[in-house]
Amino acid sequence: MSQSGTAGFLFDLDGTLVDNVYDHVLAWKEALDALGIELSVWRIHRRVGMSGGLFINALLRETGVEITPERNEEIHRLHAEGYARRSAHVRPLPGTRELLATLDERGVPWAVATSGRRVSATLTLDRIGIDYTRVPIVTRDQVQHAKPDPDLFLAAAERLGIEIRNAIVVGDSVWDMLAAQRAHCLGVGLLSGGYGTDELERAGAYRVYEDPRDLLRHLDEVGVRGR
Amino acid sequence: MSQSGTAGFLFDLDGTLVDNVYDHVLAWKEALDALGIELSVWRIHRRVGMSGGLFINALLRETGVEITPERNEEIHRLHAEGYARRSAHVRPLPGTRELLATLDERGVPWAVATSGRRVSATLTLDRIGIDYTRVPIVTRDQVQHAKPDPDLFLAAAERLGIEIRNAIVVGDSVWDMLAAQRAHCLGVGLLSGGYGTDELERAGAYRVYEDPRDLLRHLDEVGVRGR
Repeated sequence: MSQSGTAGFLFDLDGTLVDNVYDHVLAWKEALDALGIELSVWRIHRRVGMSGGLFINALLRETGVEITPERNEEIHRLHAEGYARRSAHVRPLPGTRELLATLDERGVPWAVATSGRRVSATLTLDRIGIDYTRVPIVTRDQVQHAKPDPDLFLAAAERLGIEIRNAIVVGDSVWDMLAAQRAHCLGVGLLSGGYGTDELERAGAYRVYEDPRDLLRHLDEVGVRGR
Repeated sequence: MSQSGTAGFLFDLDGTLVDNVYDHVLAWKEALDALGIELSVWRIHRRVGMSGGLFINALLRETGVEITPERNEEIHRLHAEGYARRSAHVRPLPGTRELLATLDERGVPWAVATSGRRVSATLTLDRIGIDYTRVPIVTRDQVQHAKPDPDLFLAAAERLGIEIRNAIVVGDSVWDMLAAQRAHCLGVGLLSGGYGTDELERAGAYRVYEDPRDLLRHLDEVGVRGR
């Protein structure tokens, strides 16, 4: 008899486990303003979670401003500073701790894969009490391409020792859903980052829930069995 | 020969003419936090622009916290303070000034109708240089019910001296589109407040544009003729 292998969850971090998307958005806004680059806030919001390189390309198209590698580094530095200033009041989303504890109880492996850099991710993980000596955490610094390339999720599945086709990607942005499609695994969307249901579904979300608490209530729908 | 009457524009303010939705969102968040009421930021975002009374009802449902009239007033006071602190850096959205100047040039009447209170609206209007001694501005204080009730838009059309069926409502939120439907006039959505296209269309938007600049480029599609 053939076996299907172990299923596991690959979680995006910002906006998926933690209520910090709007803090990131305003930290990017502040960084761009400081360099005299005007971009409407909603356009930044729609790009949070995508690879920094693609973000810089989009900037060029929409503002006409040429971004040198030095300016790019400066934008990222200012964003990291602005986010660090805001991170003290950042909280887990409703149900995050209960969801992760339930997966642990039921022996379902899970990891975190974020387009953010290690320095910001560490600040955020501390806010929700994830023990990153135990849980595999893959950050932007550890792969060649961030989302919507599948690299982050592929690396996270490998760290968990599961096959990617048995992975369930949970994320709040279209970049997560597109990366899940490219990795050939299931994508589950959460509204907690501020995208709408239709946007997530069109990007490939199999199901859309409000936040981690709502996902926890519907774990059966994504195939997680009781003990 | 019967005449169709003069067409005119009724603009929402926050997120439609001005890039300040995220500032309002975080000012509400801060106000709720100060009173110990925990609500995820995306849920606040989805309610910006709706009537304060309905917002307080939604709060009760989602947090279980009973809001007395005194607490309600305190939340509004803290929000107004928080927004005032942020308002200095608020900017018009791309194309706002050009759009309004073009309507003036072509003799198309327009007004502003906002669910915000006069004190915050005045701060915002100052940031985009709208002369509110000349342009009709209807704020929350001047009608019985705010959006999604049609009162604000009905009052604005009356101030312009146009029939409501000849009005075009332009707004960034589903509350604007629902109010436009209830007023029996055309609704045009803008993405600049952070909602997605589908959400606006499902709430009744006839067309959805990115921001005022994009609407200006497509004025013919909403029936505005050249001189």
